[in-house]
Amino acid sequence: MSDRERIKIHGADGPVFGAGIWHFATYVDRYATDGYGEPRTVLDAIELAGQVEDLSVVDLNWPFPPGGISTAEVKDALAARNLRAIAVTPEFYTGRFAKGGFTNPDPEVRRAAIDLVAASAEVGRELGVDYVKLWPGQDGYDYPFQADYADLWDRSVDAVRELAQAFPDLKFAIEYKPREPRNRMVFSSVARTLLAIQDMGVDNVGVLLDFGHSLYGGETPAEAARMAIARGKLFAIDVNDNFRGWDDDMVVGSVHLLETFEFFFALHDAGWDGVWQLDQFPFRENPVEAARTGIGTMKAFHRALGYLDRKELAEAQAAQDALAAQRIAKRALFRALAESEAR
Amino acid sequence: MSDRERIKIHGADGPVFGAGIWHFATYVDRYATDGYGEPRTVLDAIELAGQVEDLSVVDLNWPFPPGGISTAEVKDALAARNLRAIAVTPEFYTGRFAKGGFTNPDPEVRRAAIDLVAASAEVGRELGVDYVKLWPGQDGYDYPFQADYADLWDRSVDAVRELAQAFPDLKFAIEYKPREPRNRMVFSSVARTLLAIQDMGVDNVGVLLDFGHSLYGGETPAEAARMAIARGKLFAIDVNDNFRGWDDDMVVGSVHLLETFEFFFALHDAGWDGVWQLDQFPFRENPVEAARTGIGTMKAFHRALGYLDRKELAEAQAAQDALAAQRIAKRALFRALAESEAR
Amino acid sequence: MSDRERIKIHGADGPVFGAGIWHFATYVDRYATDGYGEPRTVLDAIELAGQVEDLSVVDLNWPFPPGGISTAEVKDALAARNLRAIAVTPEFYTGRFAKGGFTNPDPEVRRAAIDLVAASAEVGRELGVDYVKLWPGQDGYDYPFQADYADLWDRSVDAVRELAQAFPDLKFAIEYKPREPRNRMVFSSVARTLLAIQDMGVDNVGVLLDFGHSLYGGETPAEAARMAIARGKLFAIDVNDNFRGWDDDMVVGSVHLLETFEFFFALHDAGWDGVWQLDQFPFRENPVEAARTGIGTMKAFHRALGYLDRKELAEAQAAQDALAAQRIAKRALFRALAESEAR
Amino acid sequence: MSDRERIKIHGADGPVFGAGIWHFATYVDRYATDGYGEPRTVLDAIELAGQVEDLSVVDLNWPFPPGGISTAEVKDALAARNLRAIAVTPEFYTGRFAKGGFTNPDPEVRRAAIDLVAASAEVGRELGVDYVKLWPGQDGYDYPFQADYADLWDRSVDAVRELAQAFPDLKFAIEYKPREPRNRMVFSSVARTLLAIQDMGVDNVGVLLDFGHSLYGGETPAEAARMAIARGKLFAIDVNDNFRGWDDDMVVGSVHLLETFEFFFALHDAGWDGVWQLDQFPFRENPVEAARTGIGTMKAFHRALGYLDRKELAEAQAAQDALAAQRIAKRALFRALAESEAR
Repeated sequence: MSDRERIKIHGADGPVFGAGIWHFATYVDRYATDGYGEPRTVLDAIELAGQVEDLSVVDLNWPFPPGGISTAEVKDALAARNLRAIAVTPEFYTGRFAKGGFTNPDPEVRRAAIDLVAASAEVGRELGVDYVKLWPGQDGYDYPFQADYADLWDRSVDAVRELAQAFPDLKFAIEYKPREPRNRMVFSSVARTLLAIQDMGVDNVGVLLDFGHSLYGGETPAEAARMAIARGKLFAIDVNDNFRGWDDDMVVGSVHLLETFEFFFALHDAGWDGVWQLDQFPFRENPVEAARTGIGTMKAFHRALGYLDRKELAEAQAAQDALAAQRIAKRALFRALAESEAR
Repeated sequence: MSDRERIKIHGADGPVFGAGIWHFATYVDRYATDGYGEPRTVLDAIELAGQVEDLSVVDLNWPFPPGGISTAEVKDALAARNLRAIAVTPEFYTGRFAKGGFTNPDPEVRRAAIDLVAASAEVGRELGVDYVKLWPGQDGYDYPFQADYADLWDRSVDAVRELAQAFPDLKFAIEYKPREPRNRMVFSSVARTLLAIQDMGVDNVGVLLDFGHSLYGGETPAEAARMAIARGKLFAIDVNDNFRGWDDDMVVGSVHLLETFEFFFALHDAGWDGVWQLDQFPFRENPVEAARTGIGTMKAFHRALGYLDRKELAEAQAAQDALAAQRIAKRALFRALAESEAR
Repeated sequence: MSDRERIKIHGADGPVFGAGIWHFATYVDRYATDGYGEPRTVLDAIELAGQVEDLSVVDLNWPFPPGGISTAEVKDALAARNLRAIAVTPEFYTGRFAKGGFTNPDPEVRRAAIDLVAASAEVGRELGVDYVKLWPGQDGYDYPFQADYADLWDRSVDAVRELAQAFPDLKFAIEYKPREPRNRMVFSSVARTLLAIQDMGVDNVGVLLDFGHSLYGGETPAEAARMAIARGKLFAIDVNDNFRGWDDDMVVGSVHLLETFEFFFALHDAGWDGVWQLDQFPFRENPVEAARTGIGTMKAFHRALGYLDRKELAEAQAAQDALAAQRIAKRALFRALAESEAR
Repeated sequence: MSDRERIKIHGADGPVFGAGIWHFATYVDRYATDGYGEPRTVLDAIELAGQVEDLSVVDLNWPFPPGGISTAEVKDALAARNLRAIAVTPEFYTGRFAKGGFTNPDPEVRRAAIDLVAASAEVGRELGVDYVKLWPGQDGYDYPFQADYADLWDRSVDAVRELAQAFPDLKFAIEYKPREPRNRMVFSSVARTLLAIQDMGVDNVGVLLDFGHSLYGGETPAEAARMAIARGKLFAIDVNDNFRGWDDDMVVGSVHLLETFEFFFALHDAGWDGVWQLDQFPFRENPVEAARTGIGTMKAFHRALGYLDRKELAEAQAAQDALAAQRIAKRALFRALAESEAR
C-alpha cells in the first residue's frame, strides 16, 4: 500500500489532523535554560497527544527524546492512544551539528548527520511513516563572508540526493525556513527548495510547507502552496501562526485568520489530500488545550470551505476585485467561525 | 460649546464614523507618476464621501486640493452632503518641504511650514473643526550621520509649542509614524510623541494614533492607545490595515481582525469617545465601496463590544490565560462579523 | 557583435559603471505630489549623467519622459555626452497599468502592456542596447483572496515568453522585487524568477538582480547572485542600499558596506563581467554628487577585490570560520575604502 | 565614592571596555537543547574573560551559574583576573518566571522575582557594582487579548520603584528590548522606558541601551542614546550587531559599521563616560576571539572619533547634507578601521 493510499484511508471521513509530537513537549531557550516546565519523554508526549480528540497522526523526533526509548515502546504507546506516526524528524540540529548537518565543514560530522537521518529512515520504515522530515536548521551561516554559498548548496543537495537514493521506497520532505537557529538557512523559501529538489534529480523528495515559516519569510502561504503543488512537490504542511517577524509558532488562527483560511482554500481546491498538521510551540500554554484550539479552528476552516461560493469568488478573482473577493471569503469564514465559537 | 461636547452630541446615537477626505482622492507614487485615476478636487471628494451612508465627519487637507478653492465653497459642499469637518490637515509635506517642515534646515522654509499650519488653523476655526492634525511627514532624516538628532527634536517641539500657544482655543493632534516619506521620522512612536508633548509644556497638543502606523512600527495598537489615554493625550485615531511591513493603508479588517478589535476594545472600555475614522488609501479600489466596507467592519466591532463578556475576559487576562482570552474575544467578534457579512 | 562582446569591449580598461537614467530625474510620491524638484526630461537627465566622470552607460525609461521625444534625439544626446544605452525600461507600470501589466485582468490592457514592451524593444534595437529590462511593478496583488495565483503566474510567464520569442535577437532581464507599488509582486525573489524563466522555456530571458531588492527581500545578495550565475541567468545588476525594510534606493555603501562588498566579490570571482550599475533615487540629494559618491564606493570595492587574499579567505570559508573570514574581508575592504576617502 | 567617580577612575587612561559574562558561557536554544558546547560555570567564564587583554569589567548573572557558587569565590576569581564587576544581572527570566517576573499573574511568583532582584542587589553591593541590571525578559505577553496592558505597566513600574527605594544607594538600569523571549515586552523601546521611569518617580533608575535591541526595534541607536542622555537616564550601554530582524547578538561591527560608529559618536560627544560593553552571543565562535574582535573594533571607533572633523560635520548636519555628512564620517572611520585591520 502506497503512502498516498494510506493517507487517503485516513481521510475517508474528512480531513485528518496531526501534530508534531514536540507540541506536547516542554521547551528551553537561551534565557529559560532550565526549561518551560518539567521535561517530558516522547512517551509522555504521546500520552498527552492522545487526549486531543481529533488528533490522528503525529510526527516524531528521533532519537526519541530523551534517548534510550525503543521503537517498539513508541509503537505500543501510539497504538494504545490510537495514533499513527505520519513522519519521523531526525534531530540533526543539536549541539554536535551546531555548525551544520549536511553542510558541516567537518566531513565526519557531516557524515554523522547523514547517518543519523538514514537511521531515522529505518525507524520510519518500521513505524510505517509517510515521509521522513528533513529540517536542516543548522545548515546555513551567520555572518557576511562566512560561507561559500555554492559549497553550502552542493553539500545540501548531495546529502539529500544520497539519502533519497538510499531509501527509494520512502519520501523525504524538506521543511524550509528563512532562519533560526542559523541566522540564514540554505533551504529558506519554497522556490529555493524547489530549485534544490530539481538539482537533486530524484522523485522522492518534496517540500514541507510550514505556514508560519512562509508567512515570516515574506511569502503568501497560499501562493507558495500552489507553486509547490503545481510541481507535484507538496508532500506535507504544518500550520501555526506568528506576528510575521519571527517563527512564533502560535496557535492556529490567533492572528492571521484570513490568510490561514486562504491557505486552506489553496490546498483543498488544488485537490491536495495530505494531513492538516499542527506545528505549535505552546511555551506557556496547556498543550492539550492549545492543540484542541488549533484543531477546532482548522475544522472551522474546513467547514468554511463548504460555505464558500466558488463561482462568485472565481469571478471576483478574475476581475482582481479585492473588496468583492474578501467579502465572499469572509462571509463563508465568519459563518463557520461563529458556529465554531458558539459551541 | 467645547470640542468634547461637540463630539458627544455626534455620538449620542452610537459611534460616529469619519474619514480623511484623501480616502476619496486619487493618488500618485514614484512609479505611476501619472496617477491612479483622474485627479479629484476636494469638492469631488466631498461628493463621493457623501455617498457613504454612515460617514458623518471628514478630515480635510489644506490648502484644499488642488488649490484655489475657498473655505466657503468647502463649507457649502459639506453642508450639502450632511458632513462636518472634524479636522484640518495642513500639507506641510509637499515638495517645498522635502527636507522638512518644522525641521527644515532653511529657517525661511521652516517658517513657511509654521505659517502654513497657522493659516490652516484659521481655516479650521472657520470650519469649526475639533483639531488641527499635524503630520510632519518630511520631518526626519534619511541617512546615518545626516542629522543632529537633538536639533531635530528641538525644532519639532518648538514649532508645535509655538502653534499651540498661538491657538490656545484649538487642539493639535500629532500623527506619528515610523517612516515614509522620510526614511526616519521624528515623531515615530506613541511614547516618543508623548515625551515630546511633555517637552512642549502645553495642554492643547495630543496624539493621533493611526492603527496602521502603530502596527507597522512594532507597537500593539491597543497598548499604545491605553498609554496615550492614561496621559489624557489621545485626541484622535485613524483606522486601516497593512501587512506590518509598510503603511499599506488597506481596508479595515482585511488582515488583522483580532488586533483591530482589541484596539476598539481598548478605546471603548477606557471611555474614549472620539470619532472612529478611516485612513484608507484605495489605490485601485472604488473609494465609496472601500469606505462602506471599512465602516461596515467598524460597526461589527462595535456590535461585538456589546457581546463581549467583560467579566470572563477580565478573569482570563488576570491569569494571562491566552487561550481563554482569545476564545472569549473570538466568540463575540465572530458572532458580530458573521451577522455583518450575512446581511 | 553579441551583447556579451559589446560589454567586454567596454570593460577592457576595468569595470564599466552605469546608472538608470531615472537617477537624474526628480520624483513624486503620494505626499509630495508636486514633486521633489522641477520635472526633468530624459534629455535633461542625460545632460546630468554626462557630468559624472566614470559613468559610461545608462538604462533608459521608455516612452522617453515626459513623452514626445524621439529616439534620434536621445541618440544624439547620448553621443554628445559619450554615453551608451545599455538597456531600455518600458514603463508598463503607470496609471493605465494600475491593476497589472502582464497580469492585468482586462485583456486589452494586458495586450497594451505587451505591445508597449515590444515597442520599447524596437527602440532598444535602434539604440543598440544589451537588454530590455522588464520590471512588472504592478503585476501582483494587494489583498488576501484578491487573486488566483496560478493565473497571475501563467499570465506573467506567457507574456514574457511571447516577447522573448518575438525578439530572439534581444535579451530580456526581469527585475524582481518583493513589493511596491503592489503589496505583493509576482516576480518577488531570485528563486521564483528562475523558476518562472524555466517555465518560459526560452534562452534569452534572465534576471536583473537589484542589490536593494534582494536585501530587502530577506536574501543575501551575494548568495542570490551566485544562484543566478550558476544557472547562466544573471543578465544585469543594480546597486544601491537601504535599511532592509523597504526599497530605499539610497547611495551605495551608505549602510551595508560588508554585504555590498561581498556582493561584488561573488560577482567578480564567479567571472561575471556585466556593468556595475546604480539604481539610486536621490530624492533630496544632488543627483550628480550622489552618482559620483556611489561610483566612488564601487571603485573602492573593485580595488578591495585586488587586495583580497583569496587563499586565506577560501580556507576560512572552508572552515566556516566567521571571525577569520570577516577579518580577511575587512582588511582588504577598509584599506581600499580608506584610500578612497583620503583622496 | 560615587558610582560616577568609580567609572571615571577606570576611564582615566581612555575608554573602559566590558562584557556581559555570558559572552563566555555556552548556550542552548529550542533546537540545540543539549547546548552549543559544554556548560561553563561563572568561574570558567571569568577565566576566559581574563584572557581578553583590554577587558576591564564584567556584568555578572546572579545566581552565579550554575548555582552553588559564593560571592567570595567570584570576588577572588575576578581579582585573580584583574577584572571588576560593573553590574549584576538577576535572572528573573528563567523557567519559574515563564509567565513574567514583575508582571507575573501569580502574586507569589511576582514577589519571588522582586526578592531575587533584591538579593542580587545585596550581592551587587558586596561586589561593588555600579548598577543592578534589570532585564525583565519574560515580562510581557504573547497573544492579542492575553493581557491587560495597564495592569502590566503598573506591575512593572511598581516593582522597579519598590526596588529602587529599597536600595537608594544603588542604581538600577532597565535593559529594554522589543521582544524575546516573550513575543512582546513591556519595556520595549527607549521612549517607553523613559516614560515608565518618570512614572516611578525615583532618581536611581535609568536605561541600559543595547545597540542591537535598539536597531532591531526600529530605532536609530544614536538618536535613542541622545534622548536618554538628554534626560540624564543613560546608565549603561551594550554593543553588538544583528541583521535588524532579530537580536542576533553578533560581533560588533560585523554588519552596521556606520551606525555603530554614529552611536559611539553620539555617546562620546554628549560627554557620556560609561563603560563600552559587549553583549555578544558567540554561539559557534571562540568567545575569547569574538571578544577581542569586538573590542578591537570598538577601539577603532574611538580612534576614529579622534579623526572626526567636528566643525565640518556640524556644518553638514546643520544643512542636513547627507552626502557631505557621510563623507566626513567615513573619512575618519575608514582611516581608523584600516589602521586597525592592518595591525
